[in-house]
Formats: sequence, C-alpha cells, structure tokens
Amino acid sequence: MTLSIRRFSSAQADFSSQMDALLSWDSVSDTGVQQAVTDIVNNVRSRGDAAVIEYTNKFDRMDVTSMADLELSQQQLQDALDGLPETQRTALLAAAERVRSYHKHQQQDSWRYTEADGTVLGQKITPMDRVGIYVPGGKAAYPSSVLMNAIPAHVADVQEIIMVVPTPGGELNQLVLAAAAAAGVSRVFTIGGAQAVAALAYGTETVPGVDKIVGPGNIYVATAKRMVFGQVGIDMIAGPSEILVVCDGKTNPDWIAMDLFSQAEHDEDAQSILVSTDADFLDQVEASINTLLPTMERAEIIRTSLAERGALIHARSDDDAVAIINRIAPEHLELSVADPEAWLPSIRHAGAIFMGRYTAEALGDYCAGPNHVLPTSGTARFSSPLGVYDFQKRSSLIMCSADGASELGKVASTLARGEFLTAHARSAEYRIKD
Amino acid sequence: MTLSIRRFSSAQADFSSQMDALLSWDSVSDTGVQQAVTDIVNNVRSRGDAAVIEYTNKFDRMDVTSMADLELSQQQLQDALDGLPETQRTALLAAAERVRSYHKHQQQDSWRYTEADGTVLGQKITPMDRVGIYVPGGKAAYPSSVLMNAIPAHVADVQEIIMVVPTPGGELNQLVLAAAAAAGVSRVFTIGGAQAVAALAYGTETVPGVDKIVGPGNIYVATAKRMVFGQVGIDMIAGPSEILVVCDGKTNPDWIAMDLFSQAEHDEDAQSILVSTDADFLDQVEASINTLLPTMERAEIIRTSLAERGALIHARSDDDAVAIINRIAPEHLELSVADPEAWLPSIRHAGAIFMGRYTAEALGDYCAGPNHVLPTSGTARFSSPLGVYDFQKRSSLIMCSADGASELGKVASTLARGEFLTAHARSAEYRIKD
Repeated sequence: MTLSIRRFSSAQADFSSQMDALLSWDSVSDTGVQQAVTDIVNNVRSRGDAAVIEYTNKFDRMDVTSMADLELSQQQLQDALDGLPETQRTALLAAAERVRSYHKHQQQDSWRYTEADGTVLGQKITPMDRVGIYVPGGKAAYPSSVLMNAIPAHVADVQEIIMVVPTPGGELNQLVLAAAAAAGVSRVFTIGGAQAVAALAYGTETVPGVDKIVGPGNIYVATAKRMVFGQVGIDMIAGPSEILVVCDGKTNPDWIAMDLFSQAEHDEDAQSILVSTDADFLDQVEASINTLLPTMERAEIIRTSLAERGALIHARSDDDAVAIINRIAPEHLELSVADPEAWLPSIRHAGAIFMGRYTAEALGDYCAGPNHVLPTSGTARFSSPLGVYDFQKRSSLIMCSADGASELGKVASTLARGEFLTAHARSAEYRIKD
Repeated sequence: MTLSIRRFSSAQADFSSQMDALLSWDSVSDTGVQQAVTDIVNNVRSRGDAAVIEYTNKFDRMDVTSMADLELSQQQLQDALDGLPETQRTALLAAAERVRSYHKHQQQDSWRYTEADGTVLGQKITPMDRVGIYVPGGKAAYPSSVLMNAIPAHVADVQEIIMVVPTPGGELNQLVLAAAAAAGVSRVFTIGGAQAVAALAYGTETVPGVDKIVGPGNIYVATAKRMVFGQVGIDMIAGPSEILVVCDGKTNPDWIAMDLFSQAEHDEDAQSILVSTDADFLDQVEASINTLLPTMERAEIIRTSLAERGALIHARSDDDAVAIINRIAPEHLELSVADPEAWLPSIRHAGAIFMGRYTAEALGDYCAGPNHVLPTSGTARFSSPLGVYDFQKRSSLIMCSADGASELGKVASTLARGEFLTAHARSAEYRIKD
C-alpha cells in the first residue's frame, strides 16, 4: 500500500492555511486529568512517603511496603554500567564524554565592574543545590535522555541530582541505570507519574525536595509539572518531537527518507517535514520512503506518523524555504544543502541546526555533544535547548560607594515620590550627603 | 499603639518551625478564578478583538467600540515624556540610561569550536521577534517597572515590544507612558487582566501575538500566564515582595527601619525581615520603627505588613545568619555590614544583594542599574533576575565533517539499537564510511 503524504507548495494561494493546518497541535489535558493530578499532588504533599508508596503500588503494579524498596543504590547503578556488553559500554561512555565536553562551553562566569565613584555592579552565578530528573519508564525509557538531562546539571556543579524512573511491574532497564552511573546521578528512586513529580517538588520523609524538575513525561507528568511550577522550576513542557529537513535536492534520497523515519519512529504524533525547491527530488524521496518503509521494524508507527502529520513541501525559492523554517521554528532542522553556512544568518528560530549532508539528526540525538532536549511545537521562538544555564541562577550585586549612593539617592527619591512610595524615597534620602 | 513584631532567635529549639511559619505562603488561585480565566482565554482566542473589547468595557468600566480606541500612539508616549516636570524627566532618563548600561553587560555571544576532524559544534544566540510587557494599572502602576521590563528586551534587540496596561475608568498614568517612551516600547494597548494576556498569547486581529509575556499582575493575570505557558514563554509568577536585612548592629537603626518600611509599604502581604547577631540592635531598630511609623504616609499598610509578616531575628553567629539567608533565598538581601565582600562567597541564593550600609534597596529599585524584577518567595533557589537572557534564545549548531560523521555514526548506531530505534541507527549508519 503506497503511503500518501501531505504535499503542497509555497506557490499555492492557500499556502498559509496549509501551514497552519500542518502545524496545528493542542496537547490534551482534560478536566479528568487535571482533577486526578490535583488529588495526587495534594495527597503526596500532605501524606508524603505513604502516598507515594500507595500510588506506586497501584499505578506501577508494584507491591512494596517502604520507600527503601523504591530506591536504588549507587552500587546497582555501577553494576549496571559494568555489566553492559563492551561495545555498548564504550559507546555510552564516549557519548557521555562528548556531551560533557560540549556543555562545558556553556558554563557562565560571574562578572562585575566598578564605576568612577567606586560603586560596584555585577552578577554572581551559582548552581542550584539539588535538581530532579524525570525519566519515563516503559517503551520511552531512553538512556540517552538520562545523559542529556543529568550531565548539564553535573557540569553546572549541582551537588545532588535526584533521578526518578518508574519501573512498571518491577522491570528495570539496565541501560538506563548504566547511563545514570555514567552521568553522575546522586540518587535514583523507582517512582514515576504525578506522584514522583509531587515528591520531588515538596519532598517527603525519604525523597528530598528539589529546586527544579526536568525531563519528559506523559500527560500526567506534564500536568503535574505545570501545577508545581513556582514551588520549583521546571523545563519546557515538551510536545511531540519534530524534524524539518531542507534539502537542495543533491543528497541521496534514501538518506533523507531515513532521516524523516528517524523522527517518525518515535510515536504516531511525531512530525517529519521535508522542504525542497526541487519538486523532482520530493518525488524521489517519496519513492525512497515507499521502498524503505516495509524494511523498518517500526513501520506501522512511521506510516501513521507520516500519513497523519508528515509533509513534503515544495518551496519556490530559498527565500521561501527560509520563511518556512522561521514559521515552523522546528525542534530539529537539517540543512542538507551544499553551503549550510550561507543559510545560517537568516535562521531565527530552531532548537538545533544540523548542517550539511553528513549531519544526520541521529548523530545529535546520541553523541555529537549538544543536548537532545530541545524546544518542540514552535517553542524555539522563545526557548532554548536544555543546558548548563538551566541549572544555574544569577544574583545581582550592588555595592554603592558613599558618593555613588548620594547621587543615586537623588534620582531614586524623585522617582519614588512619583510613585507615591515615600518610604522608598526616605530610605534613599538617608544616603544623600548633606 | 506600639507595633508588635514577631521575634525569635536561632538559638531557640523551635527555630526551624519558627522559620517555616514565617515563610509559609500559598498564592490563592481558587476554582472560581481558574474557571473565569479559562472562559476569558478561550473567548479571546476564538473571538479576538470583539471579546477583548467586551471584557475591557466590562472590567475596566470603559465604553469603546473598536480596538483603535484601545491603542496609544508613539506621539502620545513622547508627549507624556516631554510633558513631565524637568526633575522627573531627568530622573527617569538617568534611570533608563543606567539600567540600559548595566544590562548591556548581560548580552550573550554565539560561540563555536572546531574539532580535529573538522566537525563544528556551537551555539547561536538570537533575540525573540516580539514580546509582551504586562504593566498593572491602578495603584500598582509603576513607571520603574516599565523600564525594568522593557529595557532588557530592547538591549536583547527584540524588534517589537508590545506593552499592555489597563486604564480603569480611562485614567492614563502619564509617568507610565513617559517610561514607555524612554524604554523604547513599540506599541501600547490600554487593556489588562486575563483578556490582555490571552490577546498577547494568541494574537487578535489587532493585537499581534507575541513570543513571551513578562511583567507582574494580579491573580487573574498570573493564572492566565500559567495557562498560556507553552503557547508563549512567561517569566516567573511573582509572589509578594520581600527584603531580608542582615546588619552587624553598626548601621543607624533609623536607616534600617526605613529600609524595612520601603518593602512593607508595597502591600500588606510584603515581608520585611531583619537579622542581627546583636540583640540590643534589634531593640534599637524596633524603637526606630515605633518612632518613625506615625510619620509615614502609608503607615497602615506598613503596620499590617510588619505585624503579619515581619520578623526581627537574633542570630547566634554570622554562620547562623548565613544559614538564614540561604534558607530564605530572599528576593532582596541587604548586607548592612562592615565587610560585605567577606559574606558573598557563602551566599548561595538571593535575587539581588545590596552590599554595605549605603546600598539601600530603594537605590536598586529605581536606578542603580540591575533589574528590580526578581525571584520572590524563595524562588531565587532556581531563578534569576529578569535580564537580557530572558529575551534571547539559543540554537545548537552541529556540522559534521565526513570523517566526524563516520566516527559518530558508529557510536550513535550502537546506542540507537540499544533503544530499539532502528531508523535512528540506519540514518546514522548511512554516514559511516565503507
């Protein structure tokens, strides 16, 4: 059965509404989910460990009586790493090392400067004390995600990295535990869902409360994160993953087809879009898709994803292609073109930019170095890849000299009185020299 | 009537629970508010301008028929600035200039590095296209907030800065408009509440949709911001403002009393805390408070704030004082001590640190340079002052050489197969050299 993929051109009169339809996405968080999550969060907040144990037994089909049964030891993590086949262990450690090396470039430094009158202004950078990493269980338990979430925290010098990962039916994923060892995770609890988010946000007798929670999860996890935002920091709430490939028509169409598949195989909601100024090339890639699809292990997921959410778009010009990129603000952008550097200055929004025919997204997903936790669903308009900066925060520094305070006091006094804040004004005026 | 302020010591056995009680704060967003805001947001999203006009007429007691009546011109902003008394205009422009100068130090640069095999990795920094600034109307309409929210966006090179400010009963605050002119705001709409947040998040026929919304507001505004988070970026949801003053007992107690007042006068929920190792000094400040309070214009607000939420804490030692600072993670920290630099390394969490006896918080609120939009209610544990970085985002750059892709392809293939993602693996394997 030939796969039918949405196809349109930037020359069409209805191009803009075609794009809107292609990109429309609303995450579903219905009232039922909201209410269930509210109950779980409140219960964990008030009853602590007891509630976490109850929910875990219920939702993850476990039968434990104490939190001690839901914590893994450092030895278990190290054993998992040591027990991997040589090739896997080497690959995991190589990836961890490259991710660590890239993220070290993101470290920020405190700074200060001194004004003529001796007043010092600056900003001090400090790591968070303790953060939580949510790792999904089941089919979406990815060791690479453990590396990508935990290593930036480690590079930021966060002292305690608490990982939670549900183990439905008690099944442990050894690669996930090995990744936790490689990434420098401090403690691991085998809990998940809204109950794990609540435990991390408010702390229980056993689970330490954290300052920020990062990592992907299902709709219950996402709803819980939104709910505890403010009590703790959270990362972006991720939508389905997407890739936009822009190709000049000179890359092997099989390569492009497989790059599109690599996104589509995640799940049925994932989105793969190809843009080219070469209409014939779109035909060639479509032919490759139809040839290669039957050979894929996840053929049904890929088929659904491409049929429901995929698109082959013909761009009239490179300028049109650039406009499409910025309209989509893609999570992953592959510039499979001869001179990707020439395109770079005009790209305003993208989570990660994979430049040139050799740079498959899959290389970045695992081991190139940059983070694979990226802004989805157009949120690259205003947010960034997960990074070291997500685990640091800043404090402003102000140290006025007597002369500086006197001059600033006059300005502050005038403005404060304009806002009818006379205590502010008088506090400033005390510092004005006679 | 002598004011009674909560007083305790770090030497007390119940010190920890005293601190918990002092700092306990839950913002109230009841189901009624949630439902009202959900209705408003959905209505504005589906009906656009018409809904915004209806809500504005209803909630702000206006009587307009078109959005044109709810937009101010650049000329109106400039006229407001030109029309200010000379002293006010000079002070406003001086403050704007200092804020701009400080924030320029926060600009971030793109970076990249090249590996031995020619692979390039990096990060590209870009400004957001368009942001929204929410400015409260009524008693909390502060021109200084316009400067503090808009100038970092301007320094970040955001091309369109859209300000919304409700004008209940049609009353315009000329200082707020003047500040918008001084800060480089692009457009101003006189709308507010959840309807303004929804209009900025989703766009209407007239109000352009933005990428991020910043600025303080009441519970309706905060609830709407939380609801549209994901569609657009938002800043932290602010709680009541707080100050922690740490004094070695050598500052004029009147100065300290007035510094505490300057926080307490904001509103009844604001929190002012003084910590000193010198118990006699706490007595002196309490005496100053009682002497000065009757002379304050906002005496009743200050009295309620200090009585309900204030505290005078005796610390047994400087170490205890440091522990108190880090436990509170204060929005504003005044180190009114002889050698504030000596304290700095041990301070892990604070929004802004005001160092030395001359550096009153009020100077930073208006014109020292650093931002006055700061993390409240202990959120300095994981968040930062508003800054240029809040209006920029990053894109990862990866450009593999043929050799680099071949080596990375082997690692990626192994890890992808460990995750059962074979399209990822095959996409990577295409790039391995034979």
